[in-house]
Amino acid sequence: MTDLSATAGVTDRSSGTGQSGDRGATDHIQEFLRQQDPETPCLVMDLASVRHRYRQLRAALPDIRICYAVKANPTPEVVRELVALGSSFDVASPGEIDLCLAEGAAPESISYGNTIKKGRDIARAYRQGVRLFATDSPADLANIAENAPGSRVFCRILVDNKGSRTPFGRKFGCQPRTAVALLLRARELGLDAYGVSFHIGSQQLDPGAWEHGIRAAREVFDACAQHGLQLQMVNLGGGLPAHYTQPVPPLADYVRAIETSLDRHFGEQRPQLLIEPGRFIVGDAGVLRSEVVLVADACDGENRWVYLDIGRYGGLAETEGEAITYRLRTSRDGDPCGPVVLAGPTCDGDDVLYQRTKYALPLTLRSGDWVDLLSAGAYTASYSSVGFNGFPPMRTYCIDGDQE
Amino acid sequence: MTDLSATAGVTDRSSGTGQSGDRGATDHIQEFLRQQDPETPCLVMDLASVRHRYRQLRAALPDIRICYAVKANPTPEVVRELVALGSSFDVASPGEIDLCLAEGAAPESISYGNTIKKGRDIARAYRQGVRLFATDSPADLANIAENAPGSRVFCRILVDNKGSRTPFGRKFGCQPRTAVALLLRARELGLDAYGVSFHIGSQQLDPGAWEHGIRAAREVFDACAQHGLQLQMVNLGGGLPAHYTQPVPPLADYVRAIETSLDRHFGEQRPQLLIEPGRFIVGDAGVLRSEVVLVADACDGENRWVYLDIGRYGGLAETEGEAITYRLRTSRDGDPCGPVVLAGPTCDGDDVLYQRTKYALPLTLRSGDWVDLLSAGAYTASYSSVGFNGFPPMRTYCIDGDQE
Repeated sequence: MTDLSATAGVTDRSSGTGQSGDRGATDHIQEFLRQQDPETPCLVMDLASVRHRYRQLRAALPDIRICYAVKANPTPEVVRELVALGSSFDVASPGEIDLCLAEGAAPESISYGNTIKKGRDIARAYRQGVRLFATDSPADLANIAENAPGSRVFCRILVDNKGSRTPFGRKFGCQPRTAVALLLRARELGLDAYGVSFHIGSQQLDPGAWEHGIRAAREVFDACAQHGLQLQMVNLGGGLPAHYTQPVPPLADYVRAIETSLDRHFGEQRPQLLIEPGRFIVGDAGVLRSEVVLVADACDGENRWVYLDIGRYGGLAETEGEAITYRLRTSRDGDPCGPVVLAGPTCDGDDVLYQRTKYALPLTLRSGDWVDLLSAGAYTASYSSVGFNGFPPMRTYCIDGDQE
Repeated sequence: MTDLSATAGVTDRSSGTGQSGDRGATDHIQEFLRQQDPETPCLVMDLASVRHRYRQLRAALPDIRICYAVKANPTPEVVRELVALGSSFDVASPGEIDLCLAEGAAPESISYGNTIKKGRDIARAYRQGVRLFATDSPADLANIAENAPGSRVFCRILVDNKGSRTPFGRKFGCQPRTAVALLLRARELGLDAYGVSFHIGSQQLDPGAWEHGIRAAREVFDACAQHGLQLQMVNLGGGLPAHYTQPVPPLADYVRAIETSLDRHFGEQRPQLLIEPGRFIVGDAGVLRSEVVLVADACDGENRWVYLDIGRYGGLAETEGEAITYRLRTSRDGDPCGPVVLAGPTCDGDDVLYQRTKYALPLTLRSGDWVDLLSAGAYTASYSSVGFNGFPPMRTYCIDGDQE
């Protein structure tokens, strides 16, 4: 159980990976919310913060191709901003490909990173010009060979997700020895067996975690070389964090750890590199405003329950298991605080945000007050249900703090 | 761990609460799917089955007002069908009130059953003619008194959810002594302190579970009577099951258990009664068709993984914790089966349907085949995300098996 009593009303963003622009982002969003007073719940994204974060990563990893993981926040304005900055894109579906192309992305900037693809979706992507595909199974590889002949493929390997707040389990990736077999098979099928990818788990708080993946990638490179196959690319996946309640190491620590592992395992023969940040780019750029629907003393006399107009089915899917613990800001900050259970507005017993995690909120909080969830720009709006319990999907607003 | 090896391809609906019409419903839906071959994933509802189920319950509980829990399936055609049958409605939000009114429901047939309501939403409902409200906290009660003066209120009490596949936890309801205080307070505030509600948990497999709630309701009636307040209504909530993989007692067992408890605790002075079935009315009336995206051997060599084009974020939210285990039917039924892990199509490690629950599917199953999830008419389509990973929301089709 994490004691977060001290976090109520926290607006300090001095720790964490954020640097320039983040404090400004929050201020600009706050100003927008004050002036516009939009219907809640809603997500407000500051494109200036997205831009600053992309540039920060670009400067820190100048030789690594950045593929924004569109799933983190598919708001068209965000994608358009990243197209303008020269980003590439990691996509999960035909819908995300259409979105990127509509916002001006070049087909060759798109990596179809989902290892679970229908044959006809591969064919569609290929017709649209996409030539880079992830795989991790013989059936998917056969589908790629048939529907996207000659394309580049990279094989996702399964690595340790320790240190991640949202580990992947065993759904994706295969053992390195299977990856070797798949990549050799890809060559036989006329595909360009291009490289290896891994994912050390989203919201990864241990910069050393990439070591596992980079070491395993090198093993696959070596084993393939023994069969005369020279792989060219390592895809470092996602994992760079946003700033929730837990302290986050600075970006420099991640860069140093990744560089050290690359030096250790690849030395002078550094492969082409690709990284798939999602949460890191957009997480801290968004504030989710909610309204307090109700404050109720619980029957057991132990805790107040605070019910917000946003819940697990309105976009806060990552509160499942209380994995992601957002920092909060309220309209009563400064007043004395006491412990709360936080829950959503639906008639669903599972629509509870934080029960085990200790949150403290102002004792004066009541119906009609607002509660902001900070750093809520990633994995929120697109999870929103179409209308569970009759509540409409959450709306997203984009502002540009540099232009105000 | 439940061994469901024998359930692959099961279409037998002879056990369970279903009676006439259910086998027909499945056959009619199957015929629709064969003829129309719609894009997957999709949900097909047979309105004839909804109608049969409503009438079955109407006949079994002739003196109990049936309030369909709209959240279970808010498809307009379903609501319209139930309006025509004379059903009342349990709603969770302004959106659900609008839906019911648009489909022809009378305002007096609507019960605003969510205890978490904004003051302005209560006022809106009141303007629309709604006069029946659930409550369980002083703050909500004050909101009702202010925004819906003179309305009927019933207080939700917390009861044991043992036997439920999806228990409610402590989010809703208060202790009986608190309910007494709230109902007395409601009278002081000029409201009509009307009765008591409880919910013994959704998909309740123990017909005896209502006993807890009915006994507690009687205690509240007695305590209020001591203060000169004669309550009039007991709301028996939801809980009647649909037919998933686990055997379900017949409806007659539920009716007998409820009648016995009512006789025991209320005798000749039986109150007005209300019941809120959702899953029972629509669950077995729907079939969810999905396509096999990929079949992959897992790295650990233990299990095949079968990836469908529907997952936890496309509508199968109730597979969280593997709480609801749908019966499956495939296009390869009859072929030899082997164990599988079932997962959804997104790049999300949590998008796994069944990993601990043992499912066996045909060994011949491959990309492009279909897998039907039976009895999937409740709590599916409305949970669908607006577009997580770029996948569009699941579509619902309605047919009427009686008119074909």
